[in-house]
Amino acid sequence: MLIVMRHGATPDEVQKVISVIEEMGYQAQPMPGNQRTAVGLVGNDGRVDASRLEGLPGVHEVIHVSQPYKQVSREWKADPTIVRLPGGVAFGGTEVVAIAGPCSVETDRQIIEAARQVKEAGAVVLRGGAWKPRSSPYSFQGLGKPGLRLLAKAREETGLLICTEAMDETGLGWVAEMADIVQIGARNMQNFSLLKIAGRCGKPVLLKRGISATVQELLLSAEYLLAEGNHDVILCERGVRSFDTATRNLFDLTAIPVVHKLSHLPIIADPSHGTGLRDKVIPMARAAIAAGADGIMVEVHPNPEEALSDGAQSLFPDQFAQLMREVRIIAEAIGRRVAEPAAVGA
Amino acid sequence: MLIVMRHGATPDEVQKVISVIEEMGYQAQPMPGNQRTAVGLVGNDGRVDASRLEGLPGVHEVIHVSQPYKQVSREWKADPTIVRLPGGVAFGGTEVVAIAGPCSVETDRQIIEAARQVKEAGAVVLRGGAWKPRSSPYSFQGLGKPGLRLLAKAREETGLLICTEAMDETGLGWVAEMADIVQIGARNMQNFSLLKIAGRCGKPVLLKRGISATVQELLLSAEYLLAEGNHDVILCERGVRSFDTATRNLFDLTAIPVVHKLSHLPIIADPSHGTGLRDKVIPMARAAIAAGADGIMVEVHPNPEEALSDGAQSLFPDQFAQLMREVRIIAEAIGRRVAEPAAVGA
Amino acid sequence: MLIVMRHGATPDEVQKVISVIEEMGYQAQPMPGNQRTAVGLVGNDGRVDASRLEGLPGVHEVIHVSQPYKQVSREWKADPTIVRLPGGVAFGGTEVVAIAGPCSVETDRQIIEAARQVKEAGAVVLRGGAWKPRSSPYSFQGLGKPGLRLLAKAREETGLLICTEAMDETGLGWVAEMADIVQIGARNMQNFSLLKIAGRCGKPVLLKRGISATVQELLLSAEYLLAEGNHDVILCERGVRSFDTATRNLFDLTAIPVVHKLSHLPIIADPSHGTGLRDKVIPMARAAIAAGADGIMVEVHPNPEEALSDGAQSLFPDQFAQLMREVRIIAEAIGRRVAEPAAVGA
Amino acid sequence: MLIVMRHGATPDEVQKVISVIEEMGYQAQPMPGNQRTAVGLVGNDGRVDASRLEGLPGVHEVIHVSQPYKQVSREWKADPTIVRLPGGVAFGGTEVVAIAGPCSVETDRQIIEAARQVKEAGAVVLRGGAWKPRSSPYSFQGLGKPGLRLLAKAREETGLLICTEAMDETGLGWVAEMADIVQIGARNMQNFSLLKIAGRCGKPVLLKRGISATVQELLLSAEYLLAEGNHDVILCERGVRSFDTATRNLFDLTAIPVVHKLSHLPIIADPSHGTGLRDKVIPMARAAIAAGADGIMVEVHPNPEEALSDGAQSLFPDQFAQLMREVRIIAEAIGRRVAEPAAVGA
Repeated sequence: MLIVMRHGATPDEVQKVISVIEEMGYQAQPMPGNQRTAVGLVGNDGRVDASRLEGLPGVHEVIHVSQPYKQVSREWKADPTIVRLPGGVAFGGTEVVAIAGPCSVETDRQIIEAARQVKEAGAVVLRGGAWKPRSSPYSFQGLGKPGLRLLAKAREETGLLICTEAMDETGLGWVAEMADIVQIGARNMQNFSLLKIAGRCGKPVLLKRGISATVQELLLSAEYLLAEGNHDVILCERGVRSFDTATRNLFDLTAIPVVHKLSHLPIIADPSHGTGLRDKVIPMARAAIAAGADGIMVEVHPNPEEALSDGAQSLFPDQFAQLMREVRIIAEAIGRRVAEPAAVGA
Repeated sequence: MLIVMRHGATPDEVQKVISVIEEMGYQAQPMPGNQRTAVGLVGNDGRVDASRLEGLPGVHEVIHVSQPYKQVSREWKADPTIVRLPGGVAFGGTEVVAIAGPCSVETDRQIIEAARQVKEAGAVVLRGGAWKPRSSPYSFQGLGKPGLRLLAKAREETGLLICTEAMDETGLGWVAEMADIVQIGARNMQNFSLLKIAGRCGKPVLLKRGISATVQELLLSAEYLLAEGNHDVILCERGVRSFDTATRNLFDLTAIPVVHKLSHLPIIADPSHGTGLRDKVIPMARAAIAAGADGIMVEVHPNPEEALSDGAQSLFPDQFAQLMREVRIIAEAIGRRVAEPAAVGA
Repeated sequence: MLIVMRHGATPDEVQKVISVIEEMGYQAQPMPGNQRTAVGLVGNDGRVDASRLEGLPGVHEVIHVSQPYKQVSREWKADPTIVRLPGGVAFGGTEVVAIAGPCSVETDRQIIEAARQVKEAGAVVLRGGAWKPRSSPYSFQGLGKPGLRLLAKAREETGLLICTEAMDETGLGWVAEMADIVQIGARNMQNFSLLKIAGRCGKPVLLKRGISATVQELLLSAEYLLAEGNHDVILCERGVRSFDTATRNLFDLTAIPVVHKLSHLPIIADPSHGTGLRDKVIPMARAAIAAGADGIMVEVHPNPEEALSDGAQSLFPDQFAQLMREVRIIAEAIGRRVAEPAAVGA
Repeated sequence: MLIVMRHGATPDEVQKVISVIEEMGYQAQPMPGNQRTAVGLVGNDGRVDASRLEGLPGVHEVIHVSQPYKQVSREWKADPTIVRLPGGVAFGGTEVVAIAGPCSVETDRQIIEAARQVKEAGAVVLRGGAWKPRSSPYSFQGLGKPGLRLLAKAREETGLLICTEAMDETGLGWVAEMADIVQIGARNMQNFSLLKIAGRCGKPVLLKRGISATVQELLLSAEYLLAEGNHDVILCERGVRSFDTATRNLFDLTAIPVVHKLSHLPIIADPSHGTGLRDKVIPMARAAIAAGADGIMVEVHPNPEEALSDGAQSLFPDQFAQLMREVRIIAEAIGRRVAEPAAVGA
């Protein structure tokens, strides 16, 4: 950490900064410059509270040199984390994993049909929300617990693994019991109470990037999970908020190589939310794989025109099949391959 | 709602849109244009799910004409909502209310001292976090329930009302029991499970705008509270995320008159989080009042240099006293006045 | 265009809107709704000035249904524009074109060496700035006109085409005379005086997206060029401003399919500026091609460590060679191929 | 400047950084830390090109400690710059100056009428565009040179000073000859060729903040003017681009105290562009003054409903008169006063 003093800060002000650093148990290294003096704080273990120093007289700015996260960092663990699921599916290795299915679980028939269709095209994990975070209280909020039972039935019939979102403590208990992957949605990325519970739930967690979260904040939220003992964390880029309304979100694919450099955790991409437009999903799924994503998460509905939520960004089943064909070629072009449902089967 | 067809959409595609609208129980009004046809959906009660229409062939765009919220709207209730608290304090009337206190409750002595200081300067509500949402799991997370007891003690000694944040269901139960105002923080603005519980908690709720929430999303989150029966809702502008790192957030004061026009709910401003810089708090608190805010929420610490959180943006007590002097003049300049603690006192 | 009236607008106010529309020479179609009345403006030729209507009493909002641009639109011209250059190079067809070279032209030796290296790797157009827009007046501003002469020499020696930026009227005259493609940089995307001149310069124009321009604004700026008679326009996505400092800009690759749908103009991507980080250029160049870009523009320097500008995002020549190998495979995976310098040669 | 090495950087990599710093003529000060080593660059005169160091092997990040601007800085000149105009009007002193008038000069009658109306209400400078930067080539582009003559006539008749925008070299020559203040618009804030000419034009310059410019970039653009010898620079906050479409721009009033702290230059605020909505202009003009702005710039039209541009954000003359009454009270509340046209008059 570097404490930059104002131009014209007095020797007493510099001395005060040094004293506070030492009082906090660290070492201070003054560094006089042409325009201003800076004081280095040496020995930072990532727990220094900067705001105490920012508030001192004569301080211009406090600059963070160390990263505020630890266990999620490549510097903490150099080898990539491979999150292993039943049936040999793994996120973070050579294979690229496809998660697909409808936005919401709606009916018995809808989810079974969707499961069969996405499996046939090449998905190995079925997605589908039983609880849906909706901006408006008057929108469809999901089937709740009965939705979970329908997902379990779809797994039984197809052998697909299940990934579904939990929105609060009670729901998370049920999801962790039933699903193979517990999803924490973008709106809850900084719901720290929920993260702490997810960190102790015993199942892999798919953590989606918040709608205006920096990569650093995403990694800090993941740190909450690891700090509670859960190392099976899959990150997910799903678009961030921007000024242009041409797409629903701004799909930040550069976050894929950025995360891969900073962290050992796997990261997948969700082009359905990332773009919000059906006809942008195929090119952007290809782009995600080309950028190095460890998987994709795609909304597919047997009949998007009748979907109770997100119909406009859900693919028709045959579009998803086309997407998987294209994604396979791109994956191979960069030396990876798409995980096949055969590996999961009954 | 207006469904805009692509240039060159076929008559069959237009007809399909009309049929679906009628099937959904609304009336369709086609509107042919030079470049393209549009179809109006008449009779929208705010519950139409646009994505079903967006997905139809030949549809270019669906444009929302009605607002998606209802009970929070000025069109629903023309007169301003006045949120009344014990001792005659009211948000949303002629008076401007000051909420002040430290970021976190730290010790018995700290919170009592802060309470006395802010009361003396003119605050009528004491703020202070018992639970703190922190980006890093290694930062100070608040005292928890014992913090609530210290706030209760401060109220007893000073007569100030108490406003403090709840982060989850369990905590909200305790906060609603003890505090006068239950705060939902920016990171939880779209934690819909928590909003539903807050909507049934029986206490006024202070709802802070999320870090990248639009005004419409803020109003929709407030709608969750009203939909559950809680009409005592105070909104709070506290800065949004932007591209410039010169300030911690971008303090969007125009949101004050924007909300006043769209909604009957009172709205206050938090210049401490809005700017993140101690020396910007005074000018921006003045600006908030000049823009028409119904109150301000300010971080004040007896000794900011030793604060466990947010030290750099907390005012020294004498700075807060100066701020209150300046704010009083601005309030009077626009025909309002600052609520005085005398009205509350023992 | 749809003029949405406030809830409770009077019949007189609605009538006034109708009169003004008719006065402007268009047809008005009132559309009463449950919550509010809307009035359609029929016959919009793209030249209606909305602000006149926005200002009328009782008007809540004016919604644009028609696109404000014309000649750049797919609706105006359905077939893709193919921008043809000397030697058979074409942007917008099946081939994917690589533009590469240093940020700035620095010396005779540097630019010749760079040209040879990028040609060997597979570029067919050489980039290199003679005038550099720099945030600070104290940064290297480019060699100016002598830089153009060095570029001409590099073309002579390698057969590569030349693309270089013009920043004002005088410079544009020189660039149009010498270069094969005139670049308008991001900071000048809305320098309308310069666009008008570029629209009459007789050479193809590469128009970079402004740092916070919407896709619609990019297309409107291109419209300035077409309106002046220049139809040889190549658009370029190069990253937009965002809140996350993890990358220099936020590379908006979804803009590629968005532009391809709205416009017939070709669009390429610049992963060097789009990410600002050398080790992100290769994965994001692959992603750009996978997303459907008609070309890439990449900064390559014979010795990036000694570059006078943008050293940190310039590739080493062998990195560029690797990038071209990977990009070729991705292009073929989606049925395209990389334009080869052989087609240009001496 | 601080060069932060990657965790695990080799001693050779650290040594290379030290050598390059010394080669560049500065002093290197290594600073080993727990997690990583940093190397301080001492002696930075503001001209160090960081990208050369960013590109070196083993470098994690380069952190700027010095500000990249010089002459605009408070550290360079502690006392506020007062920009003096004919008739005793001054920006940057105790007085708050009002600039008002229509978006565009349209007709003889319109501009004279507007001038009389804004003078009567209390403006001392008349604004009005002769050249208008418009997103679309088909929108009204201004009267051009004849517009300047109409402005001159309005000055003659009212004694108001004139502020008008120049968009290119030719136009700037004419504007500098005729007007009292040369305006550089938001879209040209980084048109460096134009800035250099404005820096030698001999008239005070009003420099508007670019739509997504950081405060630092605004100051760097001002530095271009000072570096050319023009010290009479007035900055202007006019809203930045954001994700919320509730207002046209996000009016960043905190930029006022931020600029006042970093720079000695005066800064005014433009609530018309800052909000884009007529009924938000009055509260936000009050807020601007309360935040410490040295003036305001407001669009007023004799008949906004017939304005050729920006009608929806232009005030009616009586609204402007009300605004001036309110602004006077706020100014006095913070110890300033509004400059009166009397001081200018014939």
